[in-house]
Amino acid sequence: MKQALIFTSDPAKALDEALAAEENRHPGSLFILTDENSARCCLPLLKESRAAADAKIITIGAGDSNKNIRSLEEVWTTLTGGGATRGSVMVNLGGGMVTDLGGFAAATFKRGIRFINIPTTLLSAVDAAVGGKTGINFCGLKNEIGSFREAETVIISAAFYSTLPYGELLSGYGEVLKHALIDSPEAVAEALKINLQEVCLTQLEGILQRSVRVKQRIVAEDPFEHGIRRALNLGHTAAHAFEALAMERRRPLAHGIAVAHGLVTDLVMSHLRLGFPSDTLHQVASFVRDNYPAPEFTCKEYGALTDFMRHDKKNRSADAINFTLLSAPGEIKIDCLATDTEISAALDITRDLLGC
Amino acid sequence: MKQALIFTSDPAKALDEALAAEENRHPGSLFILTDENSARCCLPLLKESRAAADAKIITIGAGDSNKNIRSLEEVWTTLTGGGATRGSVMVNLGGGMVTDLGGFAAATFKRGIRFINIPTTLLSAVDAAVGGKTGINFCGLKNEIGSFREAETVIISAAFYSTLPYGELLSGYGEVLKHALIDSPEAVAEALKINLQEVCLTQLEGILQRSVRVKQRIVAEDPFEHGIRRALNLGHTAAHAFEALAMERRRPLAHGIAVAHGLVTDLVMSHLRLGFPSDTLHQVASFVRDNYPAPEFTCKEYGALTDFMRHDKKNRSADAINFTLLSAPGEIKIDCLATDTEISAALDITRDLLGC
Repeated sequence: MKQALIFTSDPAKALDEALAAEENRHPGSLFILTDENSARCCLPLLKESRAAADAKIITIGAGDSNKNIRSLEEVWTTLTGGGATRGSVMVNLGGGMVTDLGGFAAATFKRGIRFINIPTTLLSAVDAAVGGKTGINFCGLKNEIGSFREAETVIISAAFYSTLPYGELLSGYGEVLKHALIDSPEAVAEALKINLQEVCLTQLEGILQRSVRVKQRIVAEDPFEHGIRRALNLGHTAAHAFEALAMERRRPLAHGIAVAHGLVTDLVMSHLRLGFPSDTLHQVASFVRDNYPAPEFTCKEYGALTDFMRHDKKNRSADAINFTLLSAPGEIKIDCLATDTEISAALDITRDLLGC
Repeated sequence: MKQALIFTSDPAKALDEALAAEENRHPGSLFILTDENSARCCLPLLKESRAAADAKIITIGAGDSNKNIRSLEEVWTTLTGGGATRGSVMVNLGGGMVTDLGGFAAATFKRGIRFINIPTTLLSAVDAAVGGKTGINFCGLKNEIGSFREAETVIISAAFYSTLPYGELLSGYGEVLKHALIDSPEAVAEALKINLQEVCLTQLEGILQRSVRVKQRIVAEDPFEHGIRRALNLGHTAAHAFEALAMERRRPLAHGIAVAHGLVTDLVMSHLRLGFPSDTLHQVASFVRDNYPAPEFTCKEYGALTDFMRHDKKNRSADAINFTLLSAPGEIKIDCLATDTEISAALDITRDLLGC
């Protein structure tokens, strides 16, 4: 099945069009999943949709702590109680928490019904909404339970992002930078041109379209992450360690900000090992330094950071740590193993470049 | 991935061989799921297995009432607590309840780990263990939550079936008859030759191998049941109605027995509508009459039975009821719609043929 990606300024109309193609759809067979936030802020933007008018709305608690089995049961129960059939369609309207949990609920209800993602944050538009990774947290572990199942359609509308707080814009843009780097030199140049202090919406839409298509292309080549999909881990081995350290200090760090820092670390390593161009490295580092908060670690934390990297679930050996690196923008090398010494050197240079 | 089917008299050796192919498997990364019955009666047959010796055993309550979300959570929790990784393997040792629930647990743990089914009843060997339908009951509905995921390997050993009670033998043999009918005239002739009162194990093994391969072939052609897989519904529209009526009367009917009765109803309809050969119809009906308990319904229940058929989840329209029929053994016609009058006529003849 080819996944439809719809970029629009009118998500209500896009939803009706996406559903119009279906024959014999019975009234009441559409379910819209929201969390408390998206029910309040985003659902009103669908009020002109004819399909949404007769949909059943399911609302779960907001935040990652609600991405759990109890919310999942609540969604399944509402689908059953609401008479959902194999022909029903679920619309996940929200950030990554809603699209992850709703996608998993849909993937497993009667062994799978179709679902449409309408991501309402920049981060979920460029990251969670596309790629088919669905799931919930379990036993304190992130995404411990889940499945691979692509949304039939993803509707991406800048209508939701025009009023995002600056922090959320930054967080989403970390993933945009990553996609540009694994795509091409032109995409990097385009991504770095933006003024994040005063975003031009038309410019953001163009960058966003390109960014989401990069992810879709990579996922299509390797949906179950046996190989090239690991390109999407660029920046993430370091980023997950930065997030874990921040969590340990009870000062959580937004995912996309950790990714921006992690990208600099991985590009440093890419430069040292694979000759990634120095000028691009410095351009990306300047962009991150100028727009993002500085990372908060010193050389005293290198041991803790490499330990977090060693226990990352991407890692398959206890001896060396697995990175995705680049020899140039768009030139991907997955499964690069690095020693603690190399990682420490890269963290040193990261701190120099980002001024922390 | 091609699924391996192993027919063996030594399931312990077969399990070790199936696992030997894997490189770098860590000790302790094997989990064996059993229910209270299979833990007691079947696990001892694996005691010679080297792999099973260092496996962690998970035991859940037996019976369909335990095929629920609480047992599923218990399995997921034990996998997490036992340090299962993406490289771990789960062995489901039991009847259809264990292979369905265990398959779903494995399909969703860390977005999917590999699993091996070792069916311990004849019914699960010919039905649940192959075909990738996994799941649990939810909100009182059978298999309401689940996914499609094939076991990597299915190990079928008559060692488990030699001591089956007669009722369980009959139940499994209903599905054997179905597979023979959708396969070929030769398979039907072979299946009808057995003496169910005094089973020759060698003969049963041969029939079983042929039967399981029929299911595997059909599933491989259409894993997600968009078309030809519905061939496997032969006999099942009527069978599910017979089971529902029996359940309503609080006298539950074993699935395979309902299937045997349902096959006769569907062959009658196949004869009336598609010219299915009268002699084969009578041979099958005689076999069912001679070996199975007679169905327990009269013409007064025809309305209730057709209502149950109308609400079957296989049915996609409220006006007509969907059947899989045959114009001859091996000549399948899916999506045949029948009216209430045609169904009543077929039920009349079923009662005549089965002497009820």
